[in-house]
Amino acid sequence: MRTIAVCLAFLATLVPGPPALAEEPEISEASQSCLECHAEATPAIVADWKRSAHAVTSPLAAQKKPEAERKVSSTKKRPEINDKVVGCAECHTLHPKMHKDTVEHDEFQMHPVVSPADCAVCHPTEVQEYNSNLMSRAYPNLRLNPLYMDLANEINGPRRYENGKLIKDKPNLATEAESCFYCHGTKIEVTGTKTRETDWGEITTPVLKGWPSHGVGRINPDGQWGSCTACHPRHSFSLAVARNPATCSECHKGPDVPAYQAYSVSKHGNIHAALAKDWNMTAVPWTVGRDFTAPTCATCHISALQDTEGKEIVKRTHEMADRIDTRLMGLVYAAPHPKLPTTYSIRNKDNQPLATALDGTPAAKFLIDKKEQAKRRATMKKVCQSCHSKTWVDGQFARLDNTIKVSNQQTLAATRMIQEAWAKGLAKGPDRNDSPFNEPLEKDWIRAWLFHANAARYASAMLGADYGVFALGRWEMARILDEMEEKIKGFRK
Amino acid sequence: MRTIAVCLAFLATLVPGPPALAEEPEISEASQSCLECHAEATPAIVADWKRSAHAVTSPLAAQKKPEAERKVSSTKKRPEINDKVVGCAECHTLHPKMHKDTVEHDEFQMHPVVSPADCAVCHPTEVQEYNSNLMSRAYPNLRLNPLYMDLANEINGPRRYENGKLIKDKPNLATEAESCFYCHGTKIEVTGTKTRETDWGEITTPVLKGWPSHGVGRINPDGQWGSCTACHPRHSFSLAVARNPATCSECHKGPDVPAYQAYSVSKHGNIHAALAKDWNMTAVPWTVGRDFTAPTCATCHISALQDTEGKEIVKRTHEMADRIDTRLMGLVYAAPHPKLPTTYSIRNKDNQPLATALDGTPAAKFLIDKKEQAKRRATMKKVCQSCHSKTWVDGQFARLDNTIKVSNQQTLAATRMIQEAWAKGLAKGPDRNDSPFNEPLEKDWIRAWLFHANAARYASAMLGADYGVFALGRWEMARILDEMEEKIKGFRK
Amino acid sequence: MRTIAVCLAFLATLVPGPPALAEEPEISEASQSCLECHAEATPAIVADWKRSAHAVTSPLAAQKKPEAERKVSSTKKRPEINDKVVGCAECHTLHPKMHKDTVEHDEFQMHPVVSPADCAVCHPTEVQEYNSNLMSRAYPNLRLNPLYMDLANEINGPRRYENGKLIKDKPNLATEAESCFYCHGTKIEVTGTKTRETDWGEITTPVLKGWPSHGVGRINPDGQWGSCTACHPRHSFSLAVARNPATCSECHKGPDVPAYQAYSVSKHGNIHAALAKDWNMTAVPWTVGRDFTAPTCATCHISALQDTEGKEIVKRTHEMADRIDTRLMGLVYAAPHPKLPTTYSIRNKDNQPLATALDGTPAAKFLIDKKEQAKRRATMKKVCQSCHSKTWVDGQFARLDNTIKVSNQQTLAATRMIQEAWAKGLAKGPDRNDSPFNEPLEKDWIRAWLFHANAARYASAMLGADYGVFALGRWEMARILDEMEEKIKGFRK
Repeated sequence: MRTIAVCLAFLATLVPGPPALAEEPEISEASQSCLECHAEATPAIVADWKRSAHAVTSPLAAQKKPEAERKVSSTKKRPEINDKVVGCAECHTLHPKMHKDTVEHDEFQMHPVVSPADCAVCHPTEVQEYNSNLMSRAYPNLRLNPLYMDLANEINGPRRYENGKLIKDKPNLATEAESCFYCHGTKIEVTGTKTRETDWGEITTPVLKGWPSHGVGRINPDGQWGSCTACHPRHSFSLAVARNPATCSECHKGPDVPAYQAYSVSKHGNIHAALAKDWNMTAVPWTVGRDFTAPTCATCHISALQDTEGKEIVKRTHEMADRIDTRLMGLVYAAPHPKLPTTYSIRNKDNQPLATALDGTPAAKFLIDKKEQAKRRATMKKVCQSCHSKTWVDGQFARLDNTIKVSNQQTLAATRMIQEAWAKGLAKGPDRNDSPFNEPLEKDWIRAWLFHANAARYASAMLGADYGVFALGRWEMARILDEMEEKIKGFRK
Repeated sequence: MRTIAVCLAFLATLVPGPPALAEEPEISEASQSCLECHAEATPAIVADWKRSAHAVTSPLAAQKKPEAERKVSSTKKRPEINDKVVGCAECHTLHPKMHKDTVEHDEFQMHPVVSPADCAVCHPTEVQEYNSNLMSRAYPNLRLNPLYMDLANEINGPRRYENGKLIKDKPNLATEAESCFYCHGTKIEVTGTKTRETDWGEITTPVLKGWPSHGVGRINPDGQWGSCTACHPRHSFSLAVARNPATCSECHKGPDVPAYQAYSVSKHGNIHAALAKDWNMTAVPWTVGRDFTAPTCATCHISALQDTEGKEIVKRTHEMADRIDTRLMGLVYAAPHPKLPTTYSIRNKDNQPLATALDGTPAAKFLIDKKEQAKRRATMKKVCQSCHSKTWVDGQFARLDNTIKVSNQQTLAATRMIQEAWAKGLAKGPDRNDSPFNEPLEKDWIRAWLFHANAARYASAMLGADYGVFALGRWEMARILDEMEEKIKGFRK
Repeated sequence: MRTIAVCLAFLATLVPGPPALAEEPEISEASQSCLECHAEATPAIVADWKRSAHAVTSPLAAQKKPEAERKVSSTKKRPEINDKVVGCAECHTLHPKMHKDTVEHDEFQMHPVVSPADCAVCHPTEVQEYNSNLMSRAYPNLRLNPLYMDLANEINGPRRYENGKLIKDKPNLATEAESCFYCHGTKIEVTGTKTRETDWGEITTPVLKGWPSHGVGRINPDGQWGSCTACHPRHSFSLAVARNPATCSECHKGPDVPAYQAYSVSKHGNIHAALAKDWNMTAVPWTVGRDFTAPTCATCHISALQDTEGKEIVKRTHEMADRIDTRLMGLVYAAPHPKLPTTYSIRNKDNQPLATALDGTPAAKFLIDKKEQAKRRATMKKVCQSCHSKTWVDGQFARLDNTIKVSNQQTLAATRMIQEAWAKGLAKGPDRNDSPFNEPLEKDWIRAWLFHANAARYASAMLGADYGVFALGRWEMARILDEMEEKIKGFRK
């Protein structure tokens, strides 16, 4: 019966006949010129693009679609919004003066690194939302937070053992780019140009420091933050890829953000594993119960959803925290979400760049208030309630609130121990102008909140309890707390 | 275009047509009444149900199928076994007096929590088998086993650090429900009712303690054990989901039960990963070599299998241990499978609620005997031999037996060390009326048997050696043993 | 186009038509005779084979295909290269005198264990290449390397705790076969024959020590190295399986070789997870950008690739290191790839069987030189450049080189610490004729290079940074180094 369905579906696509074909938008002369060489020079990039919506739709045609189905958000008339498909030149020659990576390439002013400002010509709302998303500032949020940089340097800095002493050096940029800044994004800088002979003549390319990078908070050569290709990988920009949980796993699988892990053992993840091959992963809007029967990451956090009656459930958002009231990860204590994406500017009551003080007190003026929290939770609940009863949803959120509270309490116990260790000189902490992150006992403390408090919270938020018990969660948390106590007692003797 | 014409001509001959449609069973008036509001109130639940076999088959029609293809096991005539499809009301209004969660809902006596007793109207054999399965008693098997509750409390109990001491509190119910009892199941209790205004008027729902829960040993408001939705997620009850290994991973992926992990690196798992998209995951019976070419968890442990000649290989069973002779996990020592599902009632020779004594002696009278073990292994071997030669299968089982023996020997070494530690006062054990599970050294011992002895056994049982060496297996076991020895020697000085 | 193909394929199955059947090669009389019993005795094996290319193609027909599409590499005329399909007898009765596992079976001289020498009748190039691959010598590379066997014994040897002392025994063969030698392969030896009654009369089978095994370096009863079924699982020998990354995960997922893990969080892996269900995983040659849009393990390391213009990108190779310049795993320090597959014969300047000395000096005469390294990297870059620009590829390889350098430096720090511990008697090392791998502090050192230096390198090589930071990489490396220092200082007091 499936084969018959495929046959029917196929026939349906063919029936429209010649008129549809006649309407197919053309490739611009500029892009046609790119393709002449690149079909041979980089054939798979061209092939990938040819499968994309960009290769078969023009911005103008996209603007004419019914609002709910529209993927472009620009409503303006601009010269770029025309009837040609979105080809090579349409993106790689935009804003040549802003792009420091612009080079003379054949007859074009071409830049290799396409930035959100380029995408914003057709997708301004998405880029604007993304700019409110703290992922867009992932680079400065790490680079300009001295405490977090202490941690990053501790992880990435190479060691030498000399004269019975372990010496820690600063990491180089290449190491950082392969570690924390792989996900956070690098700062791409143009340091010159390079010319080489190719089969198509002499070619000049910019020399780029920090390249490659598709980290979410990449600083582009035009000064813009972010990288759309992080989730919408060029050059197919496939919605099916962006909506697949594996995409998010690229940065959200490790013990510091075990979101994907929790999902993978959730009922949602299990149903996805079994059935997603038959789901429609590219429909816009995305119909719960018809296009798919269990959520992926995108469903709950980003996508525009409607129900089988065609009624809107939630609007699309690229401000990923729009449906998140509490920040569960990357913090000593879970806390209300920051107001601004620039978390590096947060200061707690002790003037540390953290969303809470070490005793758990939130840096309230930098964080969303209860009203905004309630609003965000209400939006998320709408998503949940497309498949679950109100009772069910309220029950699960009560559990999450409990997990947040208890995991914060566990972290408080760990923090009090490390503070005692600092006070008694068993470790050197901030009170002695030393990093709180660079000694073994401190690393026990870090693991307590960065990995395990966190895993328990994700397990509750995403129904993946197996990661909240033994794998990364409560068992490890309990073990660390007990071992810290033993170590502190041991030192005391 | 000629091909299309051929397709169309062919499809015309296949289009089911009116007669087939005429035979489609009807929705009962009661369920029709539910759907009137719920199509709008919970559209994705309705959509999910509409894809289910329940939405297109009546119990009566299901009973008439040839025995091998039958998914219902009831052969009785009962009013519920009629010619209507199995809709909302068919399940949610059954046995209203038994269900403490029954409320007046519209004109119905409706209960939200469907229990195995409800499912048993059509699927009595499955429910009966499941009741012999220790998963059905997962709640009391943990809750009523004081030793295991010691471990659970140690994991889930929050800590406070006060006056230089780590104080351990008892966990609350919400934490337990997100941790151990997420998989084991909660006890759902009705504590009252709540009435709220909705778009469809005033609605009364029961207030449920322990909700949500789809743990395998859930105690339902009608007093029944178990939750069919744990593996057959409502409301599609998809066989494809139940048979997908991801479903089992929900509770069998952590280091305490790394069955899914072992499978994922087995040849079986690899073939599944590559080819399952083209398998028939819903055929009943399930034909080895035609519907699928490598087993999933369900294949070996549950499903009714036949060979390509139509000959029965094994019967379906929901007593998951029917093909398992030795219990590999959750025990200090691997031991013959318990006779009864109520493992909390087991007592070893030292009167502890464990399947073996701490020296490894089995609590024989509570465990299946050699004859029953041989019978179960013979059944499992039938499954293996549908694809493997007898020599191959015998060879692999000899390896498993060796792994069981050696892993038990490793555990014995760890146990003797912890007993020495207890005897010498290096840790407080049962001899001093203290939990054997609450100190760092004891946790080394726990990891030895609960994680690593276990992982080696799963790797042998399921051919996933990569998890039996470095990831969770022998390397870690050896390291813990050596570290325990070092710690004990260190304490001795 | 795919839909049309599906339609056509579907219609083809319905309109069998005599002409097509008439051209299908026949099953030999011998294989027909096997099938008579085995269709009933081992129906799923027969079913699996029936889906294979072997069941529908004859060697002679395969030889006639255009070179680029050819999967057989034999160009010779031999009696086995005939017009019959490759059935049971075609493989299981080859070279009866060489096979010590040959038995009288019905009227045939049959051997159960098919070896690469059997496969080489049609696939000689592949087998020859594989023989240059160090995977083909995985058995002796471990068994004949006394240092590595020290480590293996330390992992696999069971412990007894007697009289306050942990006694380590040698592991038995069954344990080894379930641990290291599961992937490395066992040595299969014929120790006799066994006769049993079956439904088809008396059957004699060889008694095989070391069976089952499909490890990559299996020593077969005919003395040949390797096991093609390790990646091409019998009896379908599916290309789709061999090309699926899950196949490689069987041995390359643990912390000692986290290649699959790195892939799973790479952009490549993410695209595979989302889209592979629609890829053509069996096309030969394999067209980048058309058959698939992101690489699997096979793409980069093995497969013959062409671009969408039909131009060859790289040739197929079963010498998996043909595109690898540096060996990243299984070594104390990453080093140029060994020249010969027999790594057990390598000696460093201190006469240890290691590719480098403990100070990092390469055992240069056993390793490929810079020219060969450059050649291999150039081949790999060709693969990368089918989808990425030269700038991108050069940038990423510069990162990998940096990671290799820094991870080696980290290992040097760890090694200097363990050497100091040996020198000061804090642990017993090679200088005191003791294994460098059998004490807890030594195991910290092992984890540093075997797991964590390694994970960082894989993360760079395969763009899976999430495994290079917290999960297995730099965080753990830094933590171990700091803890080693603390332990050494602690001992010193």
